[in-house]
Amino acid sequence: MNIPNSALPRIVIIGGGFAGIAMAKELKNQKVQVVLLDKHNYHTFQPLLYQVATGGLEAGSIAYPIRKVIQEYDNFYFRLTSVQEIDTKNKKIIAEIGELSYDYLVIATGSKTNYFGNKDIKRNSMAMKTIPQSLNIRSLILENFEQAVLTTDVAEKNSLINFVIVGGGPTGVELAGALAEMKKAILQKDYPDLDIAKMEINLIQSGDRILNTMSEKSSLAAEKFLVDLGVTIWKNVRVTNYDGRTITTNSDLIFETATVIWTAGVQGAVVAGLDADSLVEKVERICVNRFSQVKGYEDIFAVGDIASMETEEYPEGHPMMAQPALQQGALLGENIMKLIQNKTMKPFEYNDKGSMATIGRNKAVVDLPRYHFSGVFAWFVWMFVHLFSLIGFKNKAVVFLNWVYNYIRFDREGRLIIRPYKKKSFTAFTSDEV
Amino acid sequence: MNIPNSALPRIVIIGGGFAGIAMAKELKNQKVQVVLLDKHNYHTFQPLLYQVATGGLEAGSIAYPIRKVIQEYDNFYFRLTSVQEIDTKNKKIIAEIGELSYDYLVIATGSKTNYFGNKDIKRNSMAMKTIPQSLNIRSLILENFEQAVLTTDVAEKNSLINFVIVGGGPTGVELAGALAEMKKAILQKDYPDLDIAKMEINLIQSGDRILNTMSEKSSLAAEKFLVDLGVTIWKNVRVTNYDGRTITTNSDLIFETATVIWTAGVQGAVVAGLDADSLVEKVERICVNRFSQVKGYEDIFAVGDIASMETEEYPEGHPMMAQPALQQGALLGENIMKLIQNKTMKPFEYNDKGSMATIGRNKAVVDLPRYHFSGVFAWFVWMFVHLFSLIGFKNKAVVFLNWVYNYIRFDREGRLIIRPYKKKSFTAFTSDEV
Repeated sequence: MNIPNSALPRIVIIGGGFAGIAMAKELKNQKVQVVLLDKHNYHTFQPLLYQVATGGLEAGSIAYPIRKVIQEYDNFYFRLTSVQEIDTKNKKIIAEIGELSYDYLVIATGSKTNYFGNKDIKRNSMAMKTIPQSLNIRSLILENFEQAVLTTDVAEKNSLINFVIVGGGPTGVELAGALAEMKKAILQKDYPDLDIAKMEINLIQSGDRILNTMSEKSSLAAEKFLVDLGVTIWKNVRVTNYDGRTITTNSDLIFETATVIWTAGVQGAVVAGLDADSLVEKVERICVNRFSQVKGYEDIFAVGDIASMETEEYPEGHPMMAQPALQQGALLGENIMKLIQNKTMKPFEYNDKGSMATIGRNKAVVDLPRYHFSGVFAWFVWMFVHLFSLIGFKNKAVVFLNWVYNYIRFDREGRLIIRPYKKKSFTAFTSDEV
Repeated sequence: MNIPNSALPRIVIIGGGFAGIAMAKELKNQKVQVVLLDKHNYHTFQPLLYQVATGGLEAGSIAYPIRKVIQEYDNFYFRLTSVQEIDTKNKKIIAEIGELSYDYLVIATGSKTNYFGNKDIKRNSMAMKTIPQSLNIRSLILENFEQAVLTTDVAEKNSLINFVIVGGGPTGVELAGALAEMKKAILQKDYPDLDIAKMEINLIQSGDRILNTMSEKSSLAAEKFLVDLGVTIWKNVRVTNYDGRTITTNSDLIFETATVIWTAGVQGAVVAGLDADSLVEKVERICVNRFSQVKGYEDIFAVGDIASMETEEYPEGHPMMAQPALQQGALLGENIMKLIQNKTMKPFEYNDKGSMATIGRNKAVVDLPRYHFSGVFAWFVWMFVHLFSLIGFKNKAVVFLNWVYNYIRFDREGRLIIRPYKKKSFTAFTSDEV
């Protein structure tokens, strides 16, 4: 990997997400060599991916160059690569671009979409965990409409403008709300020759309420907001398969649709090479102690979505979202320096600042530890929290400007098919240049 | 194509570039049915493509949804397709998505990169005529740097950070200047483990001055600006081949480089089916009279880059740039209504408002019909003209904000490899997701 040898201990961090970047910031100008690896050259602000998918924001507004984060940091190295395996015996990692030894290894690889082993669903549905995936969804939605305009086959037309989102967590709820607003404010005007009333947005949730990690009050408020926007919510329905045309479920219910967006589950993005008993099977997370040390290792750590730290309050690990990742990453940055200096490490204590979800303009739900509220004020809180969490002044300013514009004009100008998502069944756009 | 039949005459416009959109605006709510076809669902502001390629602007900032332009226009239809052939005998066009008859046909397909028949150059070099192509250049530049960091082979490293731009017209000059600014302000800081002084930017021009369509004063000023920024200009050098590694020229001069950006020529993007003698061979433009009527036809028109209208002042047709396209498109919109109403059409008279090119911060050249100037003031003129030429308030605002930020911070935050450009010789990034 062409990383110079140094007398300083080498910390290798795999992943530049919330946890990896929070940790890197703590290690700024410390007496360590830090090598940060990521398969993208940018940090992604995942909570706003659904706005990229629905044309409200440009991809660049929620991405930030990782090299810019570490520009002023001494002894920091970034390498663009994915990591294939950890060789714990020889204390090295094996990546696409070569091998690298470590003194301390930090796994901050985050999570990926969980299809629960169903290959048909994986092949035929859309995921929304990365920027390229979100841009694919954006292209597909618009390509569907362009195709719907052309066809005279009623069943095909209906299937093309029937959007099914599986999973009633924050991602699914926010995407359903944004699609519903697109329908009303944009698609109706952009496609006057289509009967937009026929466009369906179906949100399928396996449990008996959406946003089931939030308070019941927030769940109910979110449901009402979605229904008001024209989203159909299906509760206690479990999707059993999707062959690219038809969704089957655990009941008689079926959906004929060209577009399934799968937000029904996530699992850890595990790197091979760790002892089997350090893994939590079902969700593929890595067991860590209160110091984020991986079970069975002293020099390997895991933080963020990938890490499952059992505590009394969170017996199955912390929720897989930004806050625990940011807090774990920052603390590990401090702790690893303490470990190097033979000082006592500080056990992790999660400070739950609450959670929130937005459904549409003036419509959000917020759960604070002691207080739950929804509506216009919740929506403003949601906006400001997200705006200030973005890295970089310019991203903040551009996102703010877009939001103000979109709010005033009821518009989303990012409805651009820059890279067509090649649908096998629709060859018209696949032969286009690059 | 599922376009309803109507008693109104049907005008089919192929292409939503400057000419096509200018014409569409003139036809707003006239008593005609208009069908606008384009292979993208957005209008591209081509003069700023080089800023997308160098990470200064996001793609969405210079693209505008075509459906939004025509949202309020009666009897307007947009279809996303490329057109394969014109059947002039049966008055219909044959497109990927089906056939469509026309009463009047307007060819506004613009231009494409001209490789002068050299297939090696076409295969191995990068073009910059569309947004996807510009994003490919952006990705490739950054992928080259990521790869250069890894390699210990000096020749390979030098080849990866040697950028050759062929063609000293406005596109080549602006791109060379932007790359030179990236080198100084960003790449030096982002890649501390590379010797950025070794990064070369070579601009090859076959003639004896760059910007040869502008005044000699502006050519000289631009040359000085580029040289000050560290660009090496090669004049009177003609590239004979590029095999993906080495550029050969008509002299002994060779260049070892992984990246060639070809801006050396354009040619009309001709649609098949017109009489052979209506074409200007070498540049593949379509001969039109002063009313933009294609030679030999009364009901077929061509406007913009694709059209070659011989006049006393422009014996080889107007320059292939935005101004003639905008003016021809707008006039044809008026004229075609006159033709339908049996009124006398107005012959086209080109109003040359001048031309300009920017080289870098505070560095631009402007040729007005009677006055040529360069430097800071020219740069401000360039910025404001381009800003106000963009379609849409939000694009104007976002581009302005980006420019202010980039100017103050000497930065370009769009250095993101969203879609890796798969280099055959560099497999590390090709297996990545979507």
